[in-house]
Amino acid sequence: MTSFVYRRQMTIEWGHCDPAGIVFNARFFEFFDVSTWLLFEAALGVKRSDLNATFGIIGLPLVDARAAFRKPAKFGDTIEIASRVKTFRRSSFDVEHLITVGGELAVEGGETRVWAGKHASDPHRISALAVPADVVKRFGLQQV
Amino acid sequence: MTSFVYRRQMTIEWGHCDPAGIVFNARFFEFFDVSTWLLFEAALGVKRSDLNATFGIIGLPLVDARAAFRKPAKFGDTIEIASRVKTFRRSSFDVEHLITVGGELAVEGGETRVWAGKHASDPHRISALAVPADVVKRFGLQQV
Amino acid sequence: MTSFVYRRQMTIEWGHCDPAGIVFNARFFEFFDVSTWLLFEAALGVKRSDLNATFGIIGLPLVDARAAFRKPAKFGDTIEIASRVKTFRRSSFDVEHLITVGGELAVEGGETRVWAGKHASDPHRISALAVPADVVKRFGLQQV
Amino acid sequence: MTSFVYRRQMTIEWGHCDPAGIVFNARFFEFFDVSTWLLFEAALGVKRSDLNATFGIIGLPLVDARAAFRKPAKFGDTIEIASRVKTFRRSSFDVEHLITVGGELAVEGGETRVWAGKHASDPHRISALAVPADVVKRFGLQQV
Repeated sequence: MTSFVYRRQMTIEWGHCDPAGIVFNARFFEFFDVSTWLLFEAALGVKRSDLNATFGIIGLPLVDARAAFRKPAKFGDTIEIASRVKTFRRSSFDVEHLITVGGELAVEGGETRVWAGKHASDPHRISALAVPADVVKRFGLQQV
Repeated sequence: MTSFVYRRQMTIEWGHCDPAGIVFNARFFEFFDVSTWLLFEAALGVKRSDLNATFGIIGLPLVDARAAFRKPAKFGDTIEIASRVKTFRRSSFDVEHLITVGGELAVEGGETRVWAGKHASDPHRISALAVPADVVKRFGLQQV
Repeated sequence: MTSFVYRRQMTIEWGHCDPAGIVFNARFFEFFDVSTWLLFEAALGVKRSDLNATFGIIGLPLVDARAAFRKPAKFGDTIEIASRVKTFRRSSFDVEHLITVGGELAVEGGETRVWAGKHASDPHRISALAVPADVVKRFGLQQV
Repeated sequence: MTSFVYRRQMTIEWGHCDPAGIVFNARFFEFFDVSTWLLFEAALGVKRSDLNATFGIIGLPLVDARAAFRKPAKFGDTIEIASRVKTFRRSSFDVEHLITVGGELAVEGGETRVWAGKHASDPHRISALAVPADVVKRFGLQQV
């Protein structure tokens, strides 16, 4: 069983770039966020804006994000972002985002997120919930 | 009676600029939004995140925004944004934002916003409410 | 002869939205900018990052931008942006961007831009140049 | 000798926040970038837009960025960002950014950047240069 990968291509736009003519670093974290929503939409077959309602969660809050910038991406470049969940733990998981430009690795990104719902006794608090086994299976993974 | 003006200075940062080395246009609309919140905070003496609760509104939704770009602002420039309400109508108002760089007019911006609350009979809908006379007076203006 | 229209569809992402759950206004101006580049790429048959080199210009600087917000767009909405040049003058032109959500007009946007090159005698200055007749024709328009 | 720390306070604005009402993660990386420029400006006594010219570099390109999100920051919150260089190596260095809200740690950020100039023999390439000893000293540090 192989892990589910979501790939998309996009073009680097003028407004993504800084005075050095390359993508401003914060934009990559925005690209990662979009790709994580698309990855879950594709793996679970649920429109991204319906994920919370469908699974009874309040979201997938980010607890850690990171990126290593290997090569710059510049205005007009077509990039590919390949995203997958690397590991599901009980209630959190790691997403990997690999960005390539012309087939060469440009950015290695990662996010750690939580499967989060309302706290059982206090609706104003957020609780980490167990990721359903069915969800994990859809990504071609086993919980660790 | 003169109209209340809120002025602030800020420096143009690397991430505000595009490959031409000047502020990317969308950023100016973000600057305007911040200045409108600060203008209301200053004129009404209420922290901007408490405005809605204090006045029983759900916000000041934007219905129109515009900007004329006279001179570019670039990385490291100190800009001044002078903001004021130009006109209060029954339930909407026009905000003017003048941005200067080194004393010269760089951007002439404008926003039209609505004083909005929950609809009386349907809480899922938004209604334009009458701007309280007291609010108008704080800006040194009269309703038209 | 009808004017050339460039249409694209996109989904509203989480990071486009503000605490009211709707697209933050500045994002629309970013969408407009992308659409203008795409419109010129499509009408002129030149990759957007090659436009300047191909036509010997230094860009299409924005001198005026505006938007009227009729209906909000929210997370998960599919929007369509239809963009066209409405008028070409000697060295400037007006772009119209109409955004619909579910077929209903949500945002009416406009940009005025300049066909700009290096100043003939001073390379550090920017000059408005005459838009080539051939460019105007590609948009199905006549100069006014 | 203690390491130079640059602290600034800022308010979380409406446009920084997502539909959950908290700062959208990509914004924090933008805050880090601003703070790094301010840290160098303050430590070296050179306006941030003059750093490159003063030191004969072409910038401080980011090769790695990361953040651990401990507590959310929301609209209207005053945050403090304390930034310092933790380690200078021969030609790269690590910046730490600690964000607190009401005195509590909210985000732990980090950046790795390079002291970069034009390549000696090929001006189109970028080279990692040795960080001048004088620069390191200004931060109250020693190279490792």
